[in-house]
Amino acid sequence: MLQRTLIPLRSIGIVGSRRCLPVSFVRMCSTSEKDSEKNWELTHPRQRALEKADYMMTHPIWTTEELNSVEITHRPCEKLSDYIAYGSVSLLRFNFDLFSGYFFGTMDESKWLTRICFLETVAGVPGMVAAMVRHLHSLRLMTRDHGWIHTLLEEAENERMHLLTALTLKKPGKMFRAAVLITQGLFVNFWFFAYLVSPNFCHRFVGYLEEEAVATYTKCLKQLDAGDLPLFAKMPAPDIAIKYWKMPKDAQVRDLLLAIRADEGHHRDVNHGFASQHSDATNPWGPGK
Amino acid sequence: MLQRTLIPLRSIGIVGSRRCLPVSFVRMCSTSEKDSEKNWELTHPRQRALEKADYMMTHPIWTTEELNSVEITHRPCEKLSDYIAYGSVSLLRFNFDLFSGYFFGTMDESKWLTRICFLETVAGVPGMVAAMVRHLHSLRLMTRDHGWIHTLLEEAENERMHLLTALTLKKPGKMFRAAVLITQGLFVNFWFFAYLVSPNFCHRFVGYLEEEAVATYTKCLKQLDAGDLPLFAKMPAPDIAIKYWKMPKDAQVRDLLLAIRADEGHHRDVNHGFASQHSDATNPWGPGK
Ligand SMILES: [Fe+2]
Ligand SMILES: [Fe+2]
Ligand SMILES: [Fe+2]
Ligand SMILES: [Fe+2]
Repeated sequence: MLQRTLIPLRSIGIVGSRRCLPVSFVRMCSTSEKDSEKNWELTHPRQRALEKADYMMTHPIWTTEELNSVEITHRPCEKLSDYIAYGSVSLLRFNFDLFSGYFFGTMDESKWLTRICFLETVAGVPGMVAAMVRHLHSLRLMTRDHGWIHTLLEEAENERMHLLTALTLKKPGKMFRAAVLITQGLFVNFWFFAYLVSPNFCHRFVGYLEEEAVATYTKCLKQLDAGDLPLFAKMPAPDIAIKYWKMPKDAQVRDLLLAIRADEGHHRDVNHGFASQHSDATNPWGPGK
Repeated sequence: MLQRTLIPLRSIGIVGSRRCLPVSFVRMCSTSEKDSEKNWELTHPRQRALEKADYMMTHPIWTTEELNSVEITHRPCEKLSDYIAYGSVSLLRFNFDLFSGYFFGTMDESKWLTRICFLETVAGVPGMVAAMVRHLHSLRLMTRDHGWIHTLLEEAENERMHLLTALTLKKPGKMFRAAVLITQGLFVNFWFFAYLVSPNFCHRFVGYLEEEAVATYTKCLKQLDAGDLPLFAKMPAPDIAIKYWKMPKDAQVRDLLLAIRADEGHHRDVNHGFASQHSDATNPWGPGK
């Protein structure tokens, strides 16, 4: 019963375990009208390794100790630009909390999922845009990237996985979809130009945003532990999450929330680090670290 | 003497072997005015693995057999959009060859490097833009990507490595840099909108473009084997190339050209495949395949 009401997402194509299966590809090929074209691409010897392929970027797999030691932190503002970044984040958060109803009433499972889905559709933007800007910068000025792109792409994919995971638990409505469309349209353009103007400011902004994300997920976990989210308390983590975070088969939604919170804490540290570092300095973060 | 005239690139910061060294990062930290900020980011336990980090995306490492069996191919046009794509590529190539002087006189090492550098600054754009569009699409419509992003990013990084490798052999002049700036400014915008309108057309276009790339590198190799590029014939492959393509330590520029040609042949096959496949079909290419 619980599973049926909260996990109806096959209808929009979100099926966690289908990720690497060649089945849909093969089906697509055989039912298509243009078999000649499709066969052309099926003959390549390098395509054989598909079945076992795991095409996710490397990303941190957290130890139990790391999962439980994530703390709400705040990096003190030092420069004017830090205050502007922190001020903007606080203002944005205040307005979002006000209009999304986070201030009023209690948060139940459904409200939490809506909030998480919405925020994660936004969270996937900065890393990807920054990666593209740095890539184009490297091509255009014919200089090296110094290893940032990989970390930025990791962050972008990680946020997208937060979204896809949350989507297996709740199907978004039409109003919600419209809000996501509008927000992304505005935010991508804004972020692209902001990142061209001041990458350091943008990373500081994300650093403060991720401080809020850690606080939000911590609040959700506290509510769960206090017994206020009974549906979450009994719910197994979705397949897609167990695969992605390499969690034990019997992992619960609580473990999922811990993993996401650790990711957010990591983005916080990485982005505050990038904000403090010259764009030409070597990225100190290795892949999956 | 040969090395001094053709590999003077340390001056613009292109030093192949510095890629993963933490030295420059440590130096940056210790000479910076803002030591407090820098220390903040140096204390993170996850940063330790930096020294051995190889943050490149996985990409095909070609066998000798594969390197030598790359052929100039042409995928026959079937639909009107194929003819338009092929026609545009042919027209672009004709004009580029005309204005860059490829038609007239003989190509020496320097002219080859200029041509390669220029084309590779352009070649890195489509994969990255396509990856970003698909990523944003997945966030915006809350659907899965079906595994394309990884392959697109691999292609983008691979093209950027072609550029960085060529740059270790020749330093670009001011006129050249200006041409690169203008071209990218126009091309990125054009490509972004084109990919929003018709991803399939864009992949077909890249497929035909890469057919030309294979032909170009094949011509270069033929000239080398005919003894018309004596500087290339004796030149060792740069460090950056030996690392990236995992080549033997005594690899030559000829081996480098073979590797790049194999990459281009691979992009050709991948893009023709993507062009023939529905955007929601699963990507048949595993990572590094
Ligand atoms: Fe997130
Ligand atoms: Fe985040
Ligand atoms: Fe290339
Ligand atoms: Fe290419």
